[in-house]
Amino acid sequence: MSSTATPAYDELAGTHLRLHHLGHLQAMAGWDQAANMPPKGNDARAAALAEIAALLHRVGTDPSLGPRIAAAEAEPLGELQRANLREMRRGWLQATALPESLVQRRALATARCEHAWRRQRPANDWAGFVANFREVLAIGREQAALLAERSGTSRYEALMDLYEPGLRCATVDRVFGELRQWLPGRIRQVLQRQAQQPLVVAPQGPFPPAAQRALCERVMRLLGFDFEAGRLDVSTHPFCGGVPEDVRLTTRFQDDEFLVSLMGTVHETGHGRYEQNLPRELLGQPVALARSMAIHESQSLAFEMQLGAHPGFVALIAPLIAEAFGAQPAFEPANLQRLLTRVKPGPIRVDADEVSYPAHIMLRYEIERALIEGEIEPEDVPALWDARMMELLGVDTRGNFRDGPLQDVHWPEALFGYFPCYSLGAMYAAQWFAAMRRAQPELDARIGQGDLAPVFDWLRRNIWTQASRWTTDELALRASGEALNPAHFKAHLEARYLGG
Amino acid sequence: MSSTATPAYDELAGTHLRLHHLGHLQAMAGWDQAANMPPKGNDARAAALAEIAALLHRVGTDPSLGPRIAAAEAEPLGELQRANLREMRRGWLQATALPESLVQRRALATARCEHAWRRQRPANDWAGFVANFREVLAIGREQAALLAERSGTSRYEALMDLYEPGLRCATVDRVFGELRQWLPGRIRQVLQRQAQQPLVVAPQGPFPPAAQRALCERVMRLLGFDFEAGRLDVSTHPFCGGVPEDVRLTTRFQDDEFLVSLMGTVHETGHGRYEQNLPRELLGQPVALARSMAIHESQSLAFEMQLGAHPGFVALIAPLIAEAFGAQPAFEPANLQRLLTRVKPGPIRVDADEVSYPAHIMLRYEIERALIEGEIEPEDVPALWDARMMELLGVDTRGNFRDGPLQDVHWPEALFGYFPCYSLGAMYAAQWFAAMRRAQPELDARIGQGDLAPVFDWLRRNIWTQASRWTTDELALRASGEALNPAHFKAHLEARYLGG
Repeated sequence: MSSTATPAYDELAGTHLRLHHLGHLQAMAGWDQAANMPPKGNDARAAALAEIAALLHRVGTDPSLGPRIAAAEAEPLGELQRANLREMRRGWLQATALPESLVQRRALATARCEHAWRRQRPANDWAGFVANFREVLAIGREQAALLAERSGTSRYEALMDLYEPGLRCATVDRVFGELRQWLPGRIRQVLQRQAQQPLVVAPQGPFPPAAQRALCERVMRLLGFDFEAGRLDVSTHPFCGGVPEDVRLTTRFQDDEFLVSLMGTVHETGHGRYEQNLPRELLGQPVALARSMAIHESQSLAFEMQLGAHPGFVALIAPLIAEAFGAQPAFEPANLQRLLTRVKPGPIRVDADEVSYPAHIMLRYEIERALIEGEIEPEDVPALWDARMMELLGVDTRGNFRDGPLQDVHWPEALFGYFPCYSLGAMYAAQWFAAMRRAQPELDARIGQGDLAPVFDWLRRNIWTQASRWTTDELALRASGEALNPAHFKAHLEARYLGG
Repeated sequence: MSSTATPAYDELAGTHLRLHHLGHLQAMAGWDQAANMPPKGNDARAAALAEIAALLHRVGTDPSLGPRIAAAEAEPLGELQRANLREMRRGWLQATALPESLVQRRALATARCEHAWRRQRPANDWAGFVANFREVLAIGREQAALLAERSGTSRYEALMDLYEPGLRCATVDRVFGELRQWLPGRIRQVLQRQAQQPLVVAPQGPFPPAAQRALCERVMRLLGFDFEAGRLDVSTHPFCGGVPEDVRLTTRFQDDEFLVSLMGTVHETGHGRYEQNLPRELLGQPVALARSMAIHESQSLAFEMQLGAHPGFVALIAPLIAEAFGAQPAFEPANLQRLLTRVKPGPIRVDADEVSYPAHIMLRYEIERALIEGEIEPEDVPALWDARMMELLGVDTRGNFRDGPLQDVHWPEALFGYFPCYSLGAMYAAQWFAAMRRAQPELDARIGQGDLAPVFDWLRRNIWTQASRWTTDELALRASGEALNPAHFKAHLEARYLGG
């Protein structure tokens, strides 16, 4: 079984396969918690998840790993094995920076905070939330400090690094700094332009959840999701969970609305296809995991935004929508297209159009970075939130915590450092489509004929099957000829929203 | 946190709490495998479940446990703690009797055999089954020999002990020996009697699964199932899974039939209420687990048979059935009652009525005991099966392996020693109702008024909250004034099927 030439590497691969098996149970229990679990099951589930988190941490910080990684570095490894070892080393450095007690405290505090948040958000109970959140933030700061000490980065950077390896604040500041210069102006231009366009016809409900679900599943099939290796279920917060071998997407349905949930499903399907198409031959090893969360979001946004609002795709799903709910003027492709590209700044990130979306991210980045660096405290958040929402989007959120800083699950779950990935993902998605168009000038015509294969083939070849073989910068370079270049996102918005 | 007077006991309690948390993940992944998992997820799930099984075995056989149990025996423990220590010792003796390699071989062999069996059963492929089953049986015999060496019992007894601690063949032989004397005659009498009664009106389908599900959930609520701490889902083989804090029942629906699935749900609800009402203060410790599988089956059969075919209960659910599917003559309480108590010997155990059911168990007990003790080999099974089916139930099963020895999942899964629990459970259930009637002479009148609380109160007080505090014999004695007494089961059948 084990090649005698690489005994240390083979031992490490065995340990990571074991981590993969145990992580499978953790992933499924996490999905079940959101999709199935009845409320009284929460304490037992939280304890079980804390136990497995501690166990994974113990296996991942075993004292034998350090010497074994050092020994494996000297072994005659192939290129893929060497990339795998690089990823092992990264995980090991992160894991060994944190004591097990912190991992457990984090699991318990976030479970408590998130569970209470589910009621506090609808109740607009900011004070109640802060009472739990203080502990979550303290643990987040502690984690950030320990990771930063290890990585030599700033504390917030050390957290971003968990989701987007190598991402630095200088990059985010540069990218968001540029964005800030042109985005508010572009939003105003688009709003003026759309105000002069024909009125959008609103779809008339009700939209029965069973019909919505069937529609979502049809569209997922159109997008190539493999239902033999995954499912669609319902949860309060849509997400893509499970494991690459068994991908669990979730969505939510409301009787009076279907488009948000349909496009949310398209978004999660992008995540799902990435997971389902990760390379199988090294599955269970770190190199076979998705590259990063910005790259993950680039897949969901390639599906939801680049493809989802493409006239060719809209023409493809329009008849399915009419079949699901009966024909309506609102379901004409041109009208659907306008619905999907309507820009309307509002307080809620997940409801935001792709033009105003980055504003939501810039605001969160500024606030959570300051929280982690200790520059502000939770009680400073609402004023900062209200000011930035007004400045960037002209939206008044005063007193509306529920649609303000209480709206996201990220902070109760201590997922500090994740938010930038959404906007970087939107930028990468635009960059991928620009590269696709350069490589296949007939791309838009093909999509216009209802042929999505060129998109999937490009993503499969350049992103999905590459997994964590390269760093994010190398991956982008190999796929598109350049590292992250936000100009493609700007060009995309201008072409779609201000173009001919 | 830890009382200084009982350090060894406290350490043990901590280990068992950890086992409880890890077992939670195992239980949920097992439930999900049956209720949700898409087919391509199976390999990854099997690997994850094998990993957690090996891990639980490793934690449960840690070399520190033996000395710690010995030390705890000498500590000043309360009565509940002492009962907990007794249960810890029992689990430790069983776990340490088996090497991890056997546990792993067993998991792999049963997974292979069970997986092939799913196709072999419909194909009536006994020879193909035997090819895999030989290995499963060899491992079962090996396990039995190791456990028997440890416990000083016979090999088959050592396996029964896993499900019903302390159960000996002498008891089963005595009980089944008595049964054998009166059961075939009683079956004939009941058949003659029912032949003279008015014809039973068959319900007319279709019965839409959504309506069936809603009906099942209404009846579960009526039976006190707490949906805040559990769910009902669909799987090929109905079962009660999950954990006490979050009970996952499953059922299955067919368009042309509803009563089997409804009563199956009533059965699983009995298991579910036992789990949901185990004592909370010691949850996670062995003493807080259900006493045994015979006692567990006594709860499911108390619900399905004792209560489920009680005229008062039937009158209660008859209008719910009519509401679910529209009124029909078949849904008249008197007719439903006849449907639920119709005796019709047939080849399939899970379809059997409560009068002929024990015959199925006696036959399996005789065969699997002889298999484990090495007195017969798999090729001897069909002839023995056919002979006993004819002798006990007058049913011809020759050549019909599919509805004969291939019908149960127990043997492919190496669950030797479980079968007796079903019939002992039916006997205990009759014994509980006899005790209830002695304690509350108005019991039947109350049930007749639609008041099920006296039943639940008695079970909660005498069985559910007692968990594993006592041995099975002590539990039965405290609850009903005597250890297992099959006379109550005989009296129950005579009263219900041959009485006035």
